[in-house]
Amino acid sequence: MDDAHPDAGAPSAARRSDRAHVLHSWSAHATFEPLVVTGAEGAYFVDESGRRWLDFSSQLVNANVGHQHPKLIAAIQAQAAKLCTIAPYHANEATSEAARLIAEVAPGDLNRVFFTNGGAEAIENAIRIARLHTGRHKVLTAYRSYHGATALAITATGDARRWASEPGAPGIARFWGPYLYRSPFHAGDEAEECRRALAHLADTLAAEGPHTIAAIVLESVVGSSGVLVPPDGYLRGVRELCDAHGILMIADEVMVGFGRCGAWFAIDRWQVVPDLIAFAKGVNSGYVPLGGVIMRDAVAATFATRPYPGGLTYSGHPLACAAAVACIGIYREENLIERARRLGETVVGPALRAMQARHPSVGDVRGLGMFWALELVRDRATREPLVPFDASGAAWAPMAAFADACKRRGLWPLAIGNRLHLAPPLTIDEDALREGLAIVDEALATADRHCRG
Amino acid sequence: MDDAHPDAGAPSAARRSDRAHVLHSWSAHATFEPLVVTGAEGAYFVDESGRRWLDFSSQLVNANVGHQHPKLIAAIQAQAAKLCTIAPYHANEATSEAARLIAEVAPGDLNRVFFTNGGAEAIENAIRIARLHTGRHKVLTAYRSYHGATALAITATGDARRWASEPGAPGIARFWGPYLYRSPFHAGDEAEECRRALAHLADTLAAEGPHTIAAIVLESVVGSSGVLVPPDGYLRGVRELCDAHGILMIADEVMVGFGRCGAWFAIDRWQVVPDLIAFAKGVNSGYVPLGGVIMRDAVAATFATRPYPGGLTYSGHPLACAAAVACIGIYREENLIERARRLGETVVGPALRAMQARHPSVGDVRGLGMFWALELVRDRATREPLVPFDASGAAWAPMAAFADACKRRGLWPLAIGNRLHLAPPLTIDEDALREGLAIVDEALATADRHCRG
Repeated sequence: MDDAHPDAGAPSAARRSDRAHVLHSWSAHATFEPLVVTGAEGAYFVDESGRRWLDFSSQLVNANVGHQHPKLIAAIQAQAAKLCTIAPYHANEATSEAARLIAEVAPGDLNRVFFTNGGAEAIENAIRIARLHTGRHKVLTAYRSYHGATALAITATGDARRWASEPGAPGIARFWGPYLYRSPFHAGDEAEECRRALAHLADTLAAEGPHTIAAIVLESVVGSSGVLVPPDGYLRGVRELCDAHGILMIADEVMVGFGRCGAWFAIDRWQVVPDLIAFAKGVNSGYVPLGGVIMRDAVAATFATRPYPGGLTYSGHPLACAAAVACIGIYREENLIERARRLGETVVGPALRAMQARHPSVGDVRGLGMFWALELVRDRATREPLVPFDASGAAWAPMAAFADACKRRGLWPLAIGNRLHLAPPLTIDEDALREGLAIVDEALATADRHCRG
Repeated sequence: MDDAHPDAGAPSAARRSDRAHVLHSWSAHATFEPLVVTGAEGAYFVDESGRRWLDFSSQLVNANVGHQHPKLIAAIQAQAAKLCTIAPYHANEATSEAARLIAEVAPGDLNRVFFTNGGAEAIENAIRIARLHTGRHKVLTAYRSYHGATALAITATGDARRWASEPGAPGIARFWGPYLYRSPFHAGDEAEECRRALAHLADTLAAEGPHTIAAIVLESVVGSSGVLVPPDGYLRGVRELCDAHGILMIADEVMVGFGRCGAWFAIDRWQVVPDLIAFAKGVNSGYVPLGGVIMRDAVAATFATRPYPGGLTYSGHPLACAAAVACIGIYREENLIERARRLGETVVGPALRAMQARHPSVGDVRGLGMFWALELVRDRATREPLVPFDASGAAWAPMAAFADACKRRGLWPLAIGNRLHLAPPLTIDEDALREGLAIVDEALATADRHCRG
């Protein structure tokens, strides 16, 4: 087709080519009408109509330092002029320095990095490493989880997105993690939820055969499945179960790492050291695709003289790694880790709890740092969700209406299931943050209408 | 550790951080001594000792337009200043234009693109698409193949690299493709090899149940497993078998697409239109990680109103797509597709055949465009390979010595198994190309010493 001559009033070339030639992630191409984004800066992006959006999503919890950060752009441009790409068996300054910095900010003796292109490959390689290190095959993952969309990562995923890709890769068993608001364990408080969740995990380990299990994979703070902050003691308990049985603990920090939760890695909030960390997104704020696995010295030792049987052409990509070096520098220079923690405690948390007091549709508020969720319900007493599990189309309409109420006011929301996830860039101005929260507050009236009584 | 103060004569910070913190693809970190690459230009790259290498590998058959192409760098820098990243559910100009151009250069009605970060994810998604489109699960792949290192891609892979990741994803069955020099079918010439390979594939289909098979996946020209150029008629025969049984044909063009074989896609050399093409590497010469799947209209129709159940945060990454737009422009402006074809026919092929006439170690010469292999043997009569299948360490020493002989002369070789693969950038000066071929010619003396009689 000829996209070359847009008429006035007709769709732009960008829109026409998109409609004709792109299949978007998790979308149907004939019915999906994407926004055409033309620019972005800080906590805002702009569409082709000139509309400016306050970004409370960070683009899938990705652009932690905000859009078009000048230092990050300059670093990419400088590295582009120097060395864009090189084979993964060569070394280069950008990759070496990114690995050194990542090891520096990682907890404990997680000192060695295997670079991938993104989070799914990070999980795939973390599991492969754990299997080869332990000589065991089975892996435990949580029902409430998302780990990526390649075969092993989507099988490791607990949420409904895995169904279309089943039967998946072999060797995955599943457990339920803590989630006090809808406790799988009928617990009455956080401490009880923690004890019961650990007892459930221990029972599941026993029933699966602990000596058959290579790794337990879990998001340190569960992301897409609900911003589920683990109760104090849970991650330490998982660590102890792993140690008791020679099982590796894999922390999926793809979404929650690199400052999002007010610490370099979310798991740092509980001073627990996992054996492997899978990362992506925040490592360079997604400016160039990059992910990877960080491993403890004892795990890395398995591949000291035995070649690691995995790889990819773009592993340790210099341009992507130069962006990571710059991004870690920005986190440090701008104190973004501490800032995220402080804003979560002093601004976002209090504001959301105040909304909960005002709006019957707000069933639960949870989060930390710059990563929060409002869980919306039709009835606070029964906790019936505003929309059912895995809703789409008409069943999701009440959430769509709430999201639209945010959009009409200029806020780009991240609405998943019956929840609004709040994940603005860590760099957002405090005024803009408060403005966005006020928009959410107003939009909640739309959700309140569905509430009973 | 402290990497901040390198002493004169001591390893550079880049080398020390690499040794301390990086696990390279397919490597053991304690025994592997990578080259530290500090720069690159055109067909050359430079290491930290100042040594300049003539690149006959294009960095894993990746940098088709050569290193640090000024137009490609400028495009990356310009896009970086404009919009680095955006969520995959938004549209933007760079992604739309990349999709339009890719559809334009793709054969037939392959008009819609799903973008990934690289080749493994491209294969994973191509297979997922084929399964959902056909409602069938099983996939046929070739023993002599490499398709990537995520769970499904590595299971789809035939070569030995999959062993460490088995048991792999379910639903893969395997067949033997044509390879006249070591014919699995005891054929005497290309036409016979073609007929027998197709008969073998038809037999395998019959034994697997053609109605259970979603797709046949194959590299249009087999890459890492040997630069195996299919005999005329083979790919058309596979297409006909697919059509007869409602099976989708997936062409893996990750290594051989975008000009490498003297056509936009290698399969174009035989005027065959597959249902899906997996691509990466050459699409933007690897300057920013990018891959994807191109699909025919009939396949895309499956996801017109039914959401495609797959995705990734960086799908359609603007920076990567802007590099693709620029790279496709460079292929066109510099006539690189035709140039690759011409240089293959007039320079590389004749030179390699002349080496075969002079060197007893050259058992077979094959290739097309700028993608060739010399298969090295100890004995031309028995065709005993210079090193055994899946050789490493001492068993691979004769090939290591041959590769070292190339390196001593300033050529960076791509040596795999008992073969030298020749894949210089498509932009290489004709003089440099001839110089590199002369180095190979000289280095072959090292291999000749292992020959009997």
